[in-house]
Amino acid sequence: MARKTKIKNTILNDPIYGFISIPYGIINKLIDHAYFQRLRRIKQLGLTHLVYPGAYHTRFQHALGAMHLMGQVIDVLRSKGHKITGEEETGVLIAILLHDIGHGPFSHVLENSIVKNVTHEYLSDLIMGDLNTIFRGKLDLAIKIFENKYRKKFLHQLVASQLDMDRLDYLKRDSFFTGVAEGVISSDRIIKTLNIVDDNLVLEAKGIYSVESFLIARRLMYWQVYLHKTVISAEYLLIKILQRAKEIIKNGGELFATPALEFFLKNQYTKKDFVSDEKVLKKFAQLDDYDIFASIKTWMNADDIILSRLSSSLVNRELFHIEIQDKPFTGTAIKKYLNICSAKFKISNVEARYFVFTDQISNSAYNPSDDKINILYKSGDLVDIAKASDQLNVSVLSKRVRKYFLCVPKEFKQ
Amino acid sequence: MARKTKIKNTILNDPIYGFISIPYGIINKLIDHAYFQRLRRIKQLGLTHLVYPGAYHTRFQHALGAMHLMGQVIDVLRSKGHKITGEEETGVLIAILLHDIGHGPFSHVLENSIVKNVTHEYLSDLIMGDLNTIFRGKLDLAIKIFENKYRKKFLHQLVASQLDMDRLDYLKRDSFFTGVAEGVISSDRIIKTLNIVDDNLVLEAKGIYSVESFLIARRLMYWQVYLHKTVISAEYLLIKILQRAKEIIKNGGELFATPALEFFLKNQYTKKDFVSDEKVLKKFAQLDDYDIFASIKTWMNADDIILSRLSSSLVNRELFHIEIQDKPFTGTAIKKYLNICSAKFKISNVEARYFVFTDQISNSAYNPSDDKINILYKSGDLVDIAKASDQLNVSVLSKRVRKYFLCVPKEFKQ
Amino acid sequence: MARKTKIKNTILNDPIYGFISIPYGIINKLIDHAYFQRLRRIKQLGLTHLVYPGAYHTRFQHALGAMHLMGQVIDVLRSKGHKITGEEETGVLIAILLHDIGHGPFSHVLENSIVKNVTHEYLSDLIMGDLNTIFRGKLDLAIKIFENKYRKKFLHQLVASQLDMDRLDYLKRDSFFTGVAEGVISSDRIIKTLNIVDDNLVLEAKGIYSVESFLIARRLMYWQVYLHKTVISAEYLLIKILQRAKEIIKNGGELFATPALEFFLKNQYTKKDFVSDEKVLKKFAQLDDYDIFASIKTWMNADDIILSRLSSSLVNRELFHIEIQDKPFTGTAIKKYLNICSAKFKISNVEARYFVFTDQISNSAYNPSDDKINILYKSGDLVDIAKASDQLNVSVLSKRVRKYFLCVPKEFKQ
Amino acid sequence: MARKTKIKNTILNDPIYGFISIPYGIINKLIDHAYFQRLRRIKQLGLTHLVYPGAYHTRFQHALGAMHLMGQVIDVLRSKGHKITGEEETGVLIAILLHDIGHGPFSHVLENSIVKNVTHEYLSDLIMGDLNTIFRGKLDLAIKIFENKYRKKFLHQLVASQLDMDRLDYLKRDSFFTGVAEGVISSDRIIKTLNIVDDNLVLEAKGIYSVESFLIARRLMYWQVYLHKTVISAEYLLIKILQRAKEIIKNGGELFATPALEFFLKNQYTKKDFVSDEKVLKKFAQLDDYDIFASIKTWMNADDIILSRLSSSLVNRELFHIEIQDKPFTGTAIKKYLNICSAKFKISNVEARYFVFTDQISNSAYNPSDDKINILYKSGDLVDIAKASDQLNVSVLSKRVRKYFLCVPKEFKQ
Repeated sequence: MARKTKIKNTILNDPIYGFISIPYGIINKLIDHAYFQRLRRIKQLGLTHLVYPGAYHTRFQHALGAMHLMGQVIDVLRSKGHKITGEEETGVLIAILLHDIGHGPFSHVLENSIVKNVTHEYLSDLIMGDLNTIFRGKLDLAIKIFENKYRKKFLHQLVASQLDMDRLDYLKRDSFFTGVAEGVISSDRIIKTLNIVDDNLVLEAKGIYSVESFLIARRLMYWQVYLHKTVISAEYLLIKILQRAKEIIKNGGELFATPALEFFLKNQYTKKDFVSDEKVLKKFAQLDDYDIFASIKTWMNADDIILSRLSSSLVNRELFHIEIQDKPFTGTAIKKYLNICSAKFKISNVEARYFVFTDQISNSAYNPSDDKINILYKSGDLVDIAKASDQLNVSVLSKRVRKYFLCVPKEFKQ
Repeated sequence: MARKTKIKNTILNDPIYGFISIPYGIINKLIDHAYFQRLRRIKQLGLTHLVYPGAYHTRFQHALGAMHLMGQVIDVLRSKGHKITGEEETGVLIAILLHDIGHGPFSHVLENSIVKNVTHEYLSDLIMGDLNTIFRGKLDLAIKIFENKYRKKFLHQLVASQLDMDRLDYLKRDSFFTGVAEGVISSDRIIKTLNIVDDNLVLEAKGIYSVESFLIARRLMYWQVYLHKTVISAEYLLIKILQRAKEIIKNGGELFATPALEFFLKNQYTKKDFVSDEKVLKKFAQLDDYDIFASIKTWMNADDIILSRLSSSLVNRELFHIEIQDKPFTGTAIKKYLNICSAKFKISNVEARYFVFTDQISNSAYNPSDDKINILYKSGDLVDIAKASDQLNVSVLSKRVRKYFLCVPKEFKQ
Repeated sequence: MARKTKIKNTILNDPIYGFISIPYGIINKLIDHAYFQRLRRIKQLGLTHLVYPGAYHTRFQHALGAMHLMGQVIDVLRSKGHKITGEEETGVLIAILLHDIGHGPFSHVLENSIVKNVTHEYLSDLIMGDLNTIFRGKLDLAIKIFENKYRKKFLHQLVASQLDMDRLDYLKRDSFFTGVAEGVISSDRIIKTLNIVDDNLVLEAKGIYSVESFLIARRLMYWQVYLHKTVISAEYLLIKILQRAKEIIKNGGELFATPALEFFLKNQYTKKDFVSDEKVLKKFAQLDDYDIFASIKTWMNADDIILSRLSSSLVNRELFHIEIQDKPFTGTAIKKYLNICSAKFKISNVEARYFVFTDQISNSAYNPSDDKINILYKSGDLVDIAKASDQLNVSVLSKRVRKYFLCVPKEFKQ
Repeated sequence: MARKTKIKNTILNDPIYGFISIPYGIINKLIDHAYFQRLRRIKQLGLTHLVYPGAYHTRFQHALGAMHLMGQVIDVLRSKGHKITGEEETGVLIAILLHDIGHGPFSHVLENSIVKNVTHEYLSDLIMGDLNTIFRGKLDLAIKIFENKYRKKFLHQLVASQLDMDRLDYLKRDSFFTGVAEGVISSDRIIKTLNIVDDNLVLEAKGIYSVESFLIARRLMYWQVYLHKTVISAEYLLIKILQRAKEIIKNGGELFATPALEFFLKNQYTKKDFVSDEKVLKKFAQLDDYDIFASIKTWMNADDIILSRLSSSLVNRELFHIEIQDKPFTGTAIKKYLNICSAKFKISNVEARYFVFTDQISNSAYNPSDDKINILYKSGDLVDIAKASDQLNVSVLSKRVRKYFLCVPKEFKQ
């Protein structure tokens, strides 16, 4: 980070926005803290780079980008005559900066394998609390805003709602790095048309087309990138690897692992443990992409044939074949592959489930249960965007689409 | 145009695609012809630059851009094993290059004022015919393709259909020059997923999200740019100016005008005249943006107060106030303004209609009566895109939205 | 221009910067004035679009873009602790906005044909004076800054110096529209490293690479675009056309011309005339690209064979062959072509000079006689950029390169 | 990687070029090989992301990008009438694809710490040889081209020379991801102006400005990015960490390390070992960024205070202060810091050299000893680019600039 010593901001280069300015003081210190620096070692999109090689960007970049957009929206809202104090500005900047601080490496995978039932939102809250202790209460307002306990609701909505700065940055950033041009949204225009009515965020009517475009871009990114079938196949492979490693250790086996990963492989921690034993959170904060892959690479040579096979498949990108359909796969279809697999690998049908697995994925582009954003007409009327669009059928967009997949090693498909 | 003398292509710089390659031979000669060079003097978006200053690009650029995309799609289709002969390639390149050759300056305006009932499609056909005579039949196949009389339907569909190269280029180009980022589409991805089944153009299933994105972008460009209310106001002002000029001349008045414009102000030509009297087409081919504005600028000093007022309003960008609503304006609303106007300007109520006018505009993002594009599934099934999208309600998109507007000079609004 | 009615700025879309914000009040009024609106009808790069079709952008766009950059640099300088009052801000914004207001259509050409010895700088001064009268002294400070009579020199330097906002915008804009990617400069980074020492603009040392890059980009744009040989050929053709038209009229001939152009064809006005007879400036302010081309198009049918040939060559882009070399062309080389020409066209050798002509062009990337920009080191030392660059030989860059050209109709080359 | 099963190419998304097409057959198989997949886990710019957060891209992306440009240049050369056989095409595509295959993680660092005197070029050769064995001689021609033993010299020059596809891609890519816009070069234009004379690569004269621009961009990237002082500080910190770890192990200490890294920490292998003991190369091929950082993270808790301090400084980005000057630092200056350090950390003056260190860096933008590229004039003359540029002083550019730096922990600077 190129530091300017005499003036008040640190300036960072960003491939998307050009320059990002970081205010001196508490925000700069939070970024310098090990909790935050760790985000440099966690990729934003996990294994997606196995499909889109450019998607190797980090959560660090995203957090700074979202903060940058927050700075812009504050300027816009102030220019429209709304008062936002310096303290509130710092609060909401911190809230967005730390909104993802609880993410572990390959977050979605981890929550399905080694830190089950402990969500990243829960951990973000814990870490913010810890940082608040370290920085002696300077995060009080940020936490209030993050938890939606502050009276000016719009500040929370800028952090977490249908049109928050998180989504505006990640859509833009993920489409930029994947190279999926259709995902590129005009965050500028959306930000310029945000406004406040009764302490709630609203969108001026002229921004409606940009929001439709944003919803369609988001949906496209879901199917084209976030839920790309090869990405799903890779992620579930990683889940299976970690489950198997855990099982081996549970059964008394020995496995090389970095200390931080070993800690979580050896025990299953619950939400409570994260609070009652501070070592658990500290260890979690040491985990990053490097622990996972450095360990898995060594497992390619593990004695356990299941673990070694799964690990080489991932490391050398020999991903499993994945089939997607609209309804669940039948038992017979699965059974067939399980049989082939146990015969071929000389393992039990139960063990074969590490190679033949099915699950469901789902997505809706517009989630009406999220904080809604209303459209503000020149007349002063407020209308839910779901009803304001004269053509785009938001009710259709908000329908949850569910799909089912079945993965099997490529060699079993003829 | 930077010419390379020894090799077979001329290379042009394009701000969007980088380089555009122009094959030597007939295509190069068509571009050099006065009919085509004239497109350099006709802006693609007429008066839109009064709202989006960057939108000053020309039909010349668009025609070359669409031809460039055609070259790309031919490569893609050939790489998928479809045979396209060299002659067919030249034919379809010419067809797209000349698809807009019949446009006059401010085309939509002209068709409403001085060449009534003579569409640009009709004129494109005439001019292609003329060029075919000049180039001794070398456009035979191009014309067949343009008129959809060639057996390989997909060639025509690449020129004129829901997903033709015309639309792909103009959406991309117009959003680029206006700076409306949401309109930017991924022509690359759509082109890569085009294919042919039974001589018809189809889209492979994986391209469906890109097409949804394209349809939404197109709709956005309509409301944000093509039908922007200030653009409408400017265009109708231009219509009124030309109508008035024509009326003055009809009544024996004298007006400065360039020879080409004067020709069309003095007489009302019909489709038939364009065929029976070759001078009419020749004169039309001399008309461009320069005739219109050079003449209007002088009309700011016309004796006729109506013409002079209308002309300065346009030239100095003192555009009329425009109101838009979902239903027609009532006679009383209009009457009120007509009265104010005739009182103020001391003109009759009939003449006041030059200053107070209403009309309707409409748009649908997807036109099911256009050549449909089917989606090709891996199974081999073909499904209309309107039915293939699992979320985007294409039937809603194809609904025609109609709006009504009322224009009055700004000074009449208080 | 999309106007927001309730807030203080007008927002414009720009393809390069996204949004440009126009402050309400005097600046907005100046932009609305006919003097400024006229820049919408004058292309920034004259005939360059005959080589780079995208280069059809206008002086209107450039003036707004330069003003936008000026707003950015003011923010940067203020953030570094330098005081710039609101009045000074408005002054320098107006100065940059109007810095090119005196340009006529095809400016360089005009100054060589119909308004000889009256530079656009001189006219800019006159027009600013006129606007100052109209707006009752509100341009006093802007004019002081423009004429470098204000004590804070850096304000003038932002308008006219080696690193002024004019150059930063035009390089960026011209390379954007021509599609010559190497000309794209990082105005952002240069602006971020500007600073003030003793009321003079300086560049912080860390910006030196960006400035080297800027100088090289500028040099590249000169040879690749501004002095592209085909552009030169086209511009000199236009000069010849206007000279011939003037000669015909002087000799009592009749020619169609728009009133504004006719005014300048019929008489040769001097600097003094522009001051003593206010009609001269008024007429000049009516001239734009439309007058020139609308008139030339009609001259394709002129009785005078010289004028008609020259005019069709330009309108139909049958440009003359141009040869470039490092030393002047010999009399014999020229003589040969003059003879061919007078024989072929049956005109005198003197008249043949309309078809066979030679002149010189020159360029230096760094002009040491311009207001110099010093480099500011962390030590506080100030060093002329020409000496600060450890590698780039600025003394070489500032050498004036002179080239000579000879134009002849293509048909005379075998 | 999205695979198209029925057609001959795999298509990949790239944020820079849009799509990259990978030919089926040997090239596809090489990319799928573990040797090549490993490049996915090696960042192109090592620790540069600590200064430019976006610079987290991988050698995998670069290798594919360079291959993509190679495909373009082959098309251009063929279109100019030069014959390049299918076999030669495959050969040169493989050569560029694998040109960096010998890079280890943080390559420059490794060559200074754990695989001393074994360059990546040497390893690339070894690995290509190994792959040639695996693929039964299919890399014969590629290796010939890589080693410049093939008669058509231009093929080697496309892989390694002043204007090779390696440099064109990495400059473009590194400036893209760092966000340093001035580094962006126009690879398109350079490629379009390449040609062949007597089996050597030449640049047509009209490309000279682009090459000047390229050289300046390269120089800028060196000082702004590759040799950015904070990057240097981080890289040398990493060197010190690995040296210390090696020393501890040599002295019989115990340290956690991944197996691959442990292998190289425990022994110092020479070039010969890489050939005589195939295990050495195999182990090397397992090393990637993950080994390095997973190990260093655990060293933050090492017993050895030197190692633990150095490691936390890197992991938590508390980088050392770095001073740069034109001549070597004096012994007294260094001595002062060594004394402070040994006193403060209670370590010997020798050990203090892990915290206080100095070295030199150097760079020249144009290296005349590299394969030169000649400029081809229309006359047929060939001139060294160093002499062809009429303004840019290439002789100055090729001067090697040497700088000296001194690093000390920030706490020692007051």
